[in-house]
Amino acid sequence: MELITPLQEITRLSHLYYSRQWMFATAGNLSTRDEVIPTQFWITASGKHKGELQETDFVCVAVSDGSLVKAAEGLKPSAETSIHQVLYSQMPDVGSCLHVHTIDSNLLEFGVGKEEGFREISLPPIEIIKAFGIWDEKPNLTMPVFYNHTHVPTIANEIKRYFTENGIPKVPFLLIEGHGPTVWGKTIKEANKHLEAVHFLLQVMARRL
Amino acid sequence: MELITPLQEITRLSHLYYSRQWMFATAGNLSTRDEVIPTQFWITASGKHKGELQETDFVCVAVSDGSLVKAAEGLKPSAETSIHQVLYSQMPDVGSCLHVHTIDSNLLEFGVGKEEGFREISLPPIEIIKAFGIWDEKPNLTMPVFYNHTHVPTIANEIKRYFTENGIPKVPFLLIEGHGPTVWGKTIKEANKHLEAVHFLLQVMARRL
Amino acid sequence: MELITPLQEITRLSHLYYSRQWMFATAGNLSTRDEVIPTQFWITASGKHKGELQETDFVCVAVSDGSLVKAAEGLKPSAETSIHQVLYSQMPDVGSCLHVHTIDSNLLEFGVGKEEGFREISLPPIEIIKAFGIWDEKPNLTMPVFYNHTHVPTIANEIKRYFTENGIPKVPFLLIEGHGPTVWGKTIKEANKHLEAVHFLLQVMARRL
Amino acid sequence: MELITPLQEITRLSHLYYSRQWMFATAGNLSTRDEVIPTQFWITASGKHKGELQETDFVCVAVSDGSLVKAAEGLKPSAETSIHQVLYSQMPDVGSCLHVHTIDSNLLEFGVGKEEGFREISLPPIEIIKAFGIWDEKPNLTMPVFYNHTHVPTIANEIKRYFTENGIPKVPFLLIEGHGPTVWGKTIKEANKHLEAVHFLLQVMARRL
Repeated sequence: MELITPLQEITRLSHLYYSRQWMFATAGNLSTRDEVIPTQFWITASGKHKGELQETDFVCVAVSDGSLVKAAEGLKPSAETSIHQVLYSQMPDVGSCLHVHTIDSNLLEFGVGKEEGFREISLPPIEIIKAFGIWDEKPNLTMPVFYNHTHVPTIANEIKRYFTENGIPKVPFLLIEGHGPTVWGKTIKEANKHLEAVHFLLQVMARRL
Repeated sequence: MELITPLQEITRLSHLYYSRQWMFATAGNLSTRDEVIPTQFWITASGKHKGELQETDFVCVAVSDGSLVKAAEGLKPSAETSIHQVLYSQMPDVGSCLHVHTIDSNLLEFGVGKEEGFREISLPPIEIIKAFGIWDEKPNLTMPVFYNHTHVPTIANEIKRYFTENGIPKVPFLLIEGHGPTVWGKTIKEANKHLEAVHFLLQVMARRL
Repeated sequence: MELITPLQEITRLSHLYYSRQWMFATAGNLSTRDEVIPTQFWITASGKHKGELQETDFVCVAVSDGSLVKAAEGLKPSAETSIHQVLYSQMPDVGSCLHVHTIDSNLLEFGVGKEEGFREISLPPIEIIKAFGIWDEKPNLTMPVFYNHTHVPTIANEIKRYFTENGIPKVPFLLIEGHGPTVWGKTIKEANKHLEAVHFLLQVMARRL
Repeated sequence: MELITPLQEITRLSHLYYSRQWMFATAGNLSTRDEVIPTQFWITASGKHKGELQETDFVCVAVSDGSLVKAAEGLKPSAETSIHQVLYSQMPDVGSCLHVHTIDSNLLEFGVGKEEGFREISLPPIEIIKAFGIWDEKPNLTMPVFYNHTHVPTIANEIKRYFTENGIPKVPFLLIEGHGPTVWGKTIKEANKHLEAVHFLLQVMARRL
């Protein structure tokens, strides 16, 4: 088995997701918790072409408050770093967060209100849900869907409020309406597995409309 | 012509099916009957990434009862081995069984009841059906669709009951609702041909909804 | 520019079309008129995997009556050779015929009757039609759609009857219902251009349903 | 970082767009303003297979009136050069214009009248719009949609009339009905980013129909 670093692994996923049209234009951001210093994580720099991302196109950020720890000259953290920061701080065993834009997730319209902030939406009880480690027959699951505030830290705050009020979601992902899914996992491999399952699920939901 | 072993051939199909998004997350399982000892078959080990499968990622299982014959350390048979076992034991001339998850098969909802177990569903009489070796004009065919029990051996039992009550299906595949198709063939090549035709057929059915 | 033979060119198209899922299972057949002896054409042999086709997988057939001129041992002409034969004999300047199975062409249901044999179906007046060399603004075009007789020579006869009664279609293709489009062109390159345009057109028609 | 010329960069995009089925048959045309002489631009020659385009398949045209400045023997400018000419002359800071044919843009039917010439059409306020540099929450945007005159210079004139009457559109693209989108950007990279975002947007619009 070939040995690659976590940033190389994420970089490969970036190219793969771009080829799947999940990271068109400069959409999406990918991150991984630092292996040695778990109070830090690495996230894709802002404005990079995701099909040409390199392992040097990441910046290091503090889990506690999202402040910049380390960045090569000219690199700024993704505009959506605050969302990753909340996820890492709320879930100490999460090692990777992946956010992409998919057509199918944008077709789903739930009308979550701006003041409301978020709402629980039902998921169809199909087999792919076992990829989340949920083995109930015909499980009655929901996913949290958030309003797409322009001010990203407001979304991050709503996510924090959701975790505080409702605990960690049973499914390892959330959706921002008209925007895209964000998934997490203990490792990059697990987060990728979750994202593929989420994409399958959202495709089924969007095409059943 | 390049010579490859059956497990190499199946491994290549695994990579191909992954690239077609038929084996996302860890979905699906592929098997082939042992060339020398036909009372045994080889099936993908549980939990493997299907885009990175290697020819060493298979375990050997007995056709008679699905018991483990041989497995490298750390490898467990796929959770759905019992379904393959029933198919090999019911059809002595079958050399390969392929099971994948496709979006289109998940869009089709027939409402097969849990107690009911299975139901025959009509197929559209399109040209691709000739890939199954059926040459009738506008054939009036059905496929068996099974309830997706969480306890996989229960599905396997229902499939066995179906074969006992109805004989071998005219078409070389069955569908588990909300889950995916399972196809078979005399050889890996024939099973692959059947799977491509089944995918074509289910796409047409799902998009005509 | 690299020099390749016509059979190499067709073989490459076969691989490309397979990767586009236009030649799944063993679907479709491709042919080209012999460069030296225009009363003969070369067509894909029956039952070949189109993603693995080789330039030796063609047989040579007479334009006059579809009889076999030359074939390597074990190779039989495609079951649909009679359709190609009619097209080459009706259109002396045609150098290549391409027939594939696409999902979109199978979604379109026109209900052409068995006795009726064929019917003219309207095409939407979109820009891609200029690929057929038709430059009218909002052209009012039709394509001939044929009943999918199991006995392929009966389809071939109906196509011959169509050409006799109606002349050469204005668009360089026909459709067999529930089966797929057949296109033609002066050269392989032109036939390929026509097929890409036909696929575009049929996708628009199928998705507007 | 590898150094490539603008024509090499555009040639690569041509191959990429062909593989995405945005430039099927001979559809579409791509151009870039000359780096040294900004009163000239380079555009794909007419009738080229976009999957096999080479960096020598471009001709040089004057921004002022679209007259031919330079062309290798046998090359003619794309039939739609006049549209590019209007865009470069109306927007001095635009460095690249990209026009492709997509299925989704052809599914959208707005019924813009021939005499009317163009109409403003609303866009859904989804996240991908930020790729255009527009950061309003739920922006109330429109795109200009033009009637597809067969006489291309008439479309070009309508575009010029639009720019004169309405100014530069807020979004960096326009749509010709039944034909396809044309995007622009300061650089080839920016134009490509805009095109990917436009494709995302039009897919969402077409699939929400």
